[in-house]
Amino acid sequence: MTRQILLFNDFGAGGPYVGQMISALGAQAPAQPVVSVQHDAPRGDPYHSAYLLASLVDSGPADAVWVCVVDPGVGGSRRALQVRADGRWLVGPDNGLLVPALRRAQSGGVAEIRWCPEQLSASFHGRDLFAPVAARIALGEPFDLDVIDEQSLIGADWPQELAVVIYVEDFGNALTGLDAAALNPAGFLQVAGRRIGYRRTFCDAVPDEPFWYMNSLGLVEIAVNMGRADAVLGIGIGTPVSSLD
Amino acid sequence: MTRQILLFNDFGAGGPYVGQMISALGAQAPAQPVVSVQHDAPRGDPYHSAYLLASLVDSGPADAVWVCVVDPGVGGSRRALQVRADGRWLVGPDNGLLVPALRRAQSGGVAEIRWCPEQLSASFHGRDLFAPVAARIALGEPFDLDVIDEQSLIGADWPQELAVVIYVEDFGNALTGLDAAALNPAGFLQVAGRRIGYRRTFCDAVPDEPFWYMNSLGLVEIAVNMGRADAVLGIGIGTPVSSLD
Amino acid sequence: MTRQILLFNDFGAGGPYVGQMISALGAQAPAQPVVSVQHDAPRGDPYHSAYLLASLVDSGPADAVWVCVVDPGVGGSRRALQVRADGRWLVGPDNGLLVPALRRAQSGGVAEIRWCPEQLSASFHGRDLFAPVAARIALGEPFDLDVIDEQSLIGADWPQELAVVIYVEDFGNALTGLDAAALNPAGFLQVAGRRIGYRRTFCDAVPDEPFWYMNSLGLVEIAVNMGRADAVLGIGIGTPVSSLD
Repeated sequence: MTRQILLFNDFGAGGPYVGQMISALGAQAPAQPVVSVQHDAPRGDPYHSAYLLASLVDSGPADAVWVCVVDPGVGGSRRALQVRADGRWLVGPDNGLLVPALRRAQSGGVAEIRWCPEQLSASFHGRDLFAPVAARIALGEPFDLDVIDEQSLIGADWPQELAVVIYVEDFGNALTGLDAAALNPAGFLQVAGRRIGYRRTFCDAVPDEPFWYMNSLGLVEIAVNMGRADAVLGIGIGTPVSSLD
Repeated sequence: MTRQILLFNDFGAGGPYVGQMISALGAQAPAQPVVSVQHDAPRGDPYHSAYLLASLVDSGPADAVWVCVVDPGVGGSRRALQVRADGRWLVGPDNGLLVPALRRAQSGGVAEIRWCPEQLSASFHGRDLFAPVAARIALGEPFDLDVIDEQSLIGADWPQELAVVIYVEDFGNALTGLDAAALNPAGFLQVAGRRIGYRRTFCDAVPDEPFWYMNSLGLVEIAVNMGRADAVLGIGIGTPVSSLD
Repeated sequence: MTRQILLFNDFGAGGPYVGQMISALGAQAPAQPVVSVQHDAPRGDPYHSAYLLASLVDSGPADAVWVCVVDPGVGGSRRALQVRADGRWLVGPDNGLLVPALRRAQSGGVAEIRWCPEQLSASFHGRDLFAPVAARIALGEPFDLDVIDEQSLIGADWPQELAVVIYVEDFGNALTGLDAAALNPAGFLQVAGRRIGYRRTFCDAVPDEPFWYMNSLGLVEIAVNMGRADAVLGIGIGTPVSSLD
């Protein structure tokens, strides 16, 4: 059985952390393809990262195993989780990061990871704990599950969607936690005191004009043709967005 | 048949785009190796990117499939292309990006991609269109070709070489679009009002001295030993370079 | 035989260099997994890079082949080396980069690489020389060894440990070249005129408090909970660290 193992974390573009995780996964599950999907999730911020992750999971392979590490509480008492969301698996910390992905699944569940590796560093559970668990899931050998109540999870009370900017990407576009398909394309958004109209794509927008569109993850994204939306509008992670419909 | 699928784009070091493309390719062509060769092509700039790409193609595997996405017109009416250049394939937008690589081939041709995926986002044809086409080419199952006239391509009138800086890399070295083998190593270049001599390698240059050399792609590259050529000379993408021979 | 081929270099997050090396390795050893472990080693600085590399090698697979390129003398007269360190191999320049990893091995040795590829660029021995050698080692076909005396290596006189900061990672944490297991956890460090106490992990530290801990490589690392140690303490590569035990 071949399942992709996909990495999502806030480690940044530098340092050895992503590479060490890929090396550890390769040593434990040599035939499983490993892809680093995103290394610049909102840093130390499981709340906004969680909604970005849920959209990436939705648009990724239906049987992937995601190793999710936005984990400012590493080394403390937070629980380690494995989540099944339809045919997909996610492993990561109990800090809300996995909750939106879990809730969007038709069927699924969550368990605490009780297994502990022989060598567990205090600061790098991605390599030492989550990667080995993901490797075993990808190989079809998951650990015994110790199912826990979803209501006990950190983030159990988080909203279904997030009407704020959750991520600003390299081009300056601002992704929100809103499902674009639920909005009226004839409608306007209110962002940073501005009224923003819909365009299907960049080519339909006048240069320098802020607009919103359905991005490739299905999310409402705020952009400026030939410009940076974050700079033009003065927005960033957490900026509220509201519909004027 | 195993062909490397190689990625060239301007997506930047952050964000999920490169990873999503690799994941999509892995789902569709699991046995084909995928390598992200460059994610920081001159942004939104197919003109300068095209000459960098052509040199990378030349120095890469003779049977690779290149997925090329510097595509500011994505979602608009620009055509999607597949190019054969000797034993290599390239897929990407009709904005000039593929033209220099096509023209350097002994034999080749270009076709418009008529196939359209079931799900085509407005902004991410790299994942939704070009990756699936590249996967099929790598698997030896290319789509029916709808051959088009090279003279109809955007960029058909672009020069064979580009006597300007086309890329500044992380060390501050400035790559030009000039074939170094065609220049006299005893000759000088004129750049930013300065006369620049040839050195075979960095070790042959006095510290802080600007020089030009044949880089590992065969291009004229302007560098400063122990320094940044871009800062020392005040040069960047588009700066003209001329031979004083 | 499957051995991971692991990349360690100072090429940076941009540019085509890492991708070209992976592509070259894939062409020559298609069945060997290749992982880019670190592309932001201290730039042009084999001295500090060497101690970081030695720790990564220690914590990586026991039979890996490391391609190590921090090589400001590329194209000059410096020798090219292959090192065996217990079950691992390293290839790279004779500038000290491989010495700490070699010395930590129980058994090993070093040889000069006499083989020269047909095409050797002046500036990219990583792709043209070290990658092919690593591919052959991974395939179990190493070149004939021309064993040389360890005492003849650049760096033969370097210390066993380095009581300075050797790398500052993306979060601002400062890694030192000190083995954390050799220090008394009840003891204090002196760094930049400050007395720094031990914490097992970030969660045990008061926000904004500098502390030291054993990082996931086994090194003494200086950090600040919810902050950047480099900025708070004004430290960087080369800053001395001393034990107050």
